[in-house]
Amino acid sequence: MDAQPHGPTVHDDGTTTFDLWAPRPRSVAVQVGDTEPVPLEQRAHGWWRARVPARTGDRYGFRLDGGELLPDPASRRQPDGVHGPSALFDVSALAWSPEEARWRSAPLAGAVIYELHIGTFTPGGTFDAATERLDAVAALGVTHLEVMPINAFNGERGWGYDGVFWYAAHESYGGPEGFARFVDACHRRGLGVILDVVYNHLGPSGNVLPRYGPYLTDRYATPWGEALNLDGPGADQVRGFIVGNALHWLESFHVDGLRLDATHALIDTSSTHVLAEMADAVADLATRVQRPLELIAETDRQDPATIRPREAGGLGLDGQWCDDLHHGLHVALTGEREGYYADYTGLPDVARSYSRGFVYDGRYSPGRQRTVGAALGSLSSHRLVTCLQNHDQVGNRPTGDRLTTTVDHGRLRAAVLLLLAAPSTPMLFMGEEHGETNPFLYFSGHPEPELAEAVRRGRREEFADFPGFHGEVPDPQDPTTFAASIVDHGKSREAAGRSWRALWADLLAL
Amino acid sequence: MDAQPHGPTVHDDGTTTFDLWAPRPRSVAVQVGDTEPVPLEQRAHGWWRARVPARTGDRYGFRLDGGELLPDPASRRQPDGVHGPSALFDVSALAWSPEEARWRSAPLAGAVIYELHIGTFTPGGTFDAATERLDAVAALGVTHLEVMPINAFNGERGWGYDGVFWYAAHESYGGPEGFARFVDACHRRGLGVILDVVYNHLGPSGNVLPRYGPYLTDRYATPWGEALNLDGPGADQVRGFIVGNALHWLESFHVDGLRLDATHALIDTSSTHVLAEMADAVADLATRVQRPLELIAETDRQDPATIRPREAGGLGLDGQWCDDLHHGLHVALTGEREGYYADYTGLPDVARSYSRGFVYDGRYSPGRQRTVGAALGSLSSHRLVTCLQNHDQVGNRPTGDRLTTTVDHGRLRAAVLLLLAAPSTPMLFMGEEHGETNPFLYFSGHPEPELAEAVRRGRREEFADFPGFHGEVPDPQDPTTFAASIVDHGKSREAAGRSWRALWADLLAL
Repeated sequence: MDAQPHGPTVHDDGTTTFDLWAPRPRSVAVQVGDTEPVPLEQRAHGWWRARVPARTGDRYGFRLDGGELLPDPASRRQPDGVHGPSALFDVSALAWSPEEARWRSAPLAGAVIYELHIGTFTPGGTFDAATERLDAVAALGVTHLEVMPINAFNGERGWGYDGVFWYAAHESYGGPEGFARFVDACHRRGLGVILDVVYNHLGPSGNVLPRYGPYLTDRYATPWGEALNLDGPGADQVRGFIVGNALHWLESFHVDGLRLDATHALIDTSSTHVLAEMADAVADLATRVQRPLELIAETDRQDPATIRPREAGGLGLDGQWCDDLHHGLHVALTGEREGYYADYTGLPDVARSYSRGFVYDGRYSPGRQRTVGAALGSLSSHRLVTCLQNHDQVGNRPTGDRLTTTVDHGRLRAAVLLLLAAPSTPMLFMGEEHGETNPFLYFSGHPEPELAEAVRRGRREEFADFPGFHGEVPDPQDPTTFAASIVDHGKSREAAGRSWRALWADLLAL
Repeated sequence: MDAQPHGPTVHDDGTTTFDLWAPRPRSVAVQVGDTEPVPLEQRAHGWWRARVPARTGDRYGFRLDGGELLPDPASRRQPDGVHGPSALFDVSALAWSPEEARWRSAPLAGAVIYELHIGTFTPGGTFDAATERLDAVAALGVTHLEVMPINAFNGERGWGYDGVFWYAAHESYGGPEGFARFVDACHRRGLGVILDVVYNHLGPSGNVLPRYGPYLTDRYATPWGEALNLDGPGADQVRGFIVGNALHWLESFHVDGLRLDATHALIDTSSTHVLAEMADAVADLATRVQRPLELIAETDRQDPATIRPREAGGLGLDGQWCDDLHHGLHVALTGEREGYYADYTGLPDVARSYSRGFVYDGRYSPGRQRTVGAALGSLSSHRLVTCLQNHDQVGNRPTGDRLTTTVDHGRLRAAVLLLLAAPSTPMLFMGEEHGETNPFLYFSGHPEPELAEAVRRGRREEFADFPGFHGEVPDPQDPTTFAASIVDHGKSREAAGRSWRALWADLLAL
């Protein structure tokens, strides 16, 4: 990869150096506020640079070949949304608590992860509002929060996986300052922070990256459109953009780990896979900052190469999501056998998960119509993150219903025990600790009417043939769909909620 | 993969068992000669089977859902060309010489490979005609022949990389019996046979495989169209078709190794890459038949994972082509810096090839505009096959000119010395041993006028911007283009030819 960091560097003297990778245009100018555009100087390999008067908070953008003002691909802030200008933000000026200097997160072996979505974790929907709930989460015995994507995405509401500015913190959550305060607050309560990051595609609105350079390629397809260009011309800089982003959150924002979204969609035929390169770079950073830093892949593959050490020819990631235990438990609890559940029978899968980690470790999958996976071998099962519920397993159901609303609570309690007794690393989904019954629905807030309608239609079509479902799919664009998904922490004070919390806390204390 | 072999099994009792993978149609019938079609019985995973009266030589085909007669994807013979019916061939009835039972090829370390194209190696253009030249090749000190693809392709003339029946031996070369006689003849002269096989795409005419099942996918693109489906639904059987084909040539035809065409175009995200699966299967076969069997990848990657042992996380192939030494020598000899030669400077690349194997082993490639390769490390350089000329390096020049016609012969002799002194495994291209001056041109023999014109146009467009070339590209469809490429072995009796042969033979004797 190319080690030149992407994005602006704010200096103490009232100037900022803009480093931009833009091999496509023949001229580039930066415009700060309403001042005259200043040309950037062309450098090698598609890089441009200029140092101009500009400070934190200043809005800016680039004009390519004299065209319209475009935000910075490595924007740190999009104060007016993804279609507005970028804004400067000096991460080195952040005020951290004295405890931060001594902070180290717990090791992944023995960890308990709590997944949350900033927008619906509290009615406030911000980093600061979430901070007020941290004491209660820490009291459960959780060691790490996993925060769904906070990068800048189109509109105000959304799951965050359609981000278009990977280096920015979503403005309506509180922006980069809010996120830094939140990380600090987590650490002061002994909670590590794993940030969910998406490197496999860009969202459908506000993606300006292809205007600048060959970030994307049509050589490979993803379910969400063009794939990232990890192995074609310009790939060094695209890989640097991705690996640099991982370092950005880990180093500048003190995050303790990253959950890498849908890594199976990162098609990379290079001699060194971009995730292996990331693992190396993060290992170097961990040595430098003297903190453990974790990389956890979301993947639909039961491929031990993901978590096999680099020295043994693997990608060298620290952990991966594995849905096998979830699917086995879900089938045991619900009897559902539709879709990917067709590959599971229930408790036999739970037993196999316990003993072998992967249920599909070189077995024929009727659902995928091919042989799937390979044996975990000597790799420890603690590297597999497993759950009873997560944002996908709940939110990708037509009505976003949680297990509490469909399954006998006695059996559900037994399933919690089976999850926590497993040798894998358990994760719970916000609200699960008090038996939340509010749904977690798919929601979005695209301002463009056509895109909004396309998302609505896509969601309806997704569930048109969903077995056993004949109702109306909630409109993802309707603000009430978002509102219905907000966690009701008040339930934790009711009898049922207290009983659920006691179960989780007692088991986690063991 | 699915271990069920594809294709017919001819029995002694006048019947044949037809095993066909065809998940797409709802009914399948086999028609032998002019007899009534007989329905096949449906089995699991898209397989069909029937045992019917049929013998070696009988023509047959399948009718899917009552449609037209189609050849067998695993056809062993296409006596009337790729658009005609298939024909049965009983490989177990082949007559092998007594020496065959004791035959073992030389190890790759120390080997010298001689690449040839059956159609142009002799004026006869057949296996039997080629056999008459084997004594002279063996006398050079060559240990292995590498035979350009012999699978059934459209038309009579062609390089063979556009094959559509991978299990068949091209009829105009002499068909499967001719090939078996040729292998036997090579072995009797101490020559191992490496067969060039193409698993990354199918030719533009005569490909019936998609009618039967999902052999191809649009998830990935290759320069020649849709990629093989190695990791989607049905991939077990597609992988079985490929690995089974490798075993077919190695086991039934006694071939000693395979040269796997353009392996970089085999995109496979499975836990076990199809080439690793092939390496395992071939290693098992080698143990069973007690002969060394070699797998050599053609790849444009300097990726040591290709030849790293399976135990160390690699694909476990025995060797790979590496063009770095060729490109360095070619630049040193010709001064050409166009196209991919822009990445090379000449003798410094030769020195680097000698010391490190790969010239691009994690270095930035200006031509590819990205960092390429990784260090070979402790892997032996004998696993890299290198050359001064091969079918691609000669034939993919506009006029197919060989170095003898453009380069000072004193310098060319020095280059031969540099090739043979390198720690890699040397390969020469038919005729090079006597300083052949006939070109090796790109030629094809598509009978369809539209396809013929498309190939002509494609070839013209490929060289429209070729620096320093302003002439007419020879028409690949013109029979004289093919005829001009035939090796003139008479030259080996002339003074210049004798001198070239003496150089090669003397150096190889060292």
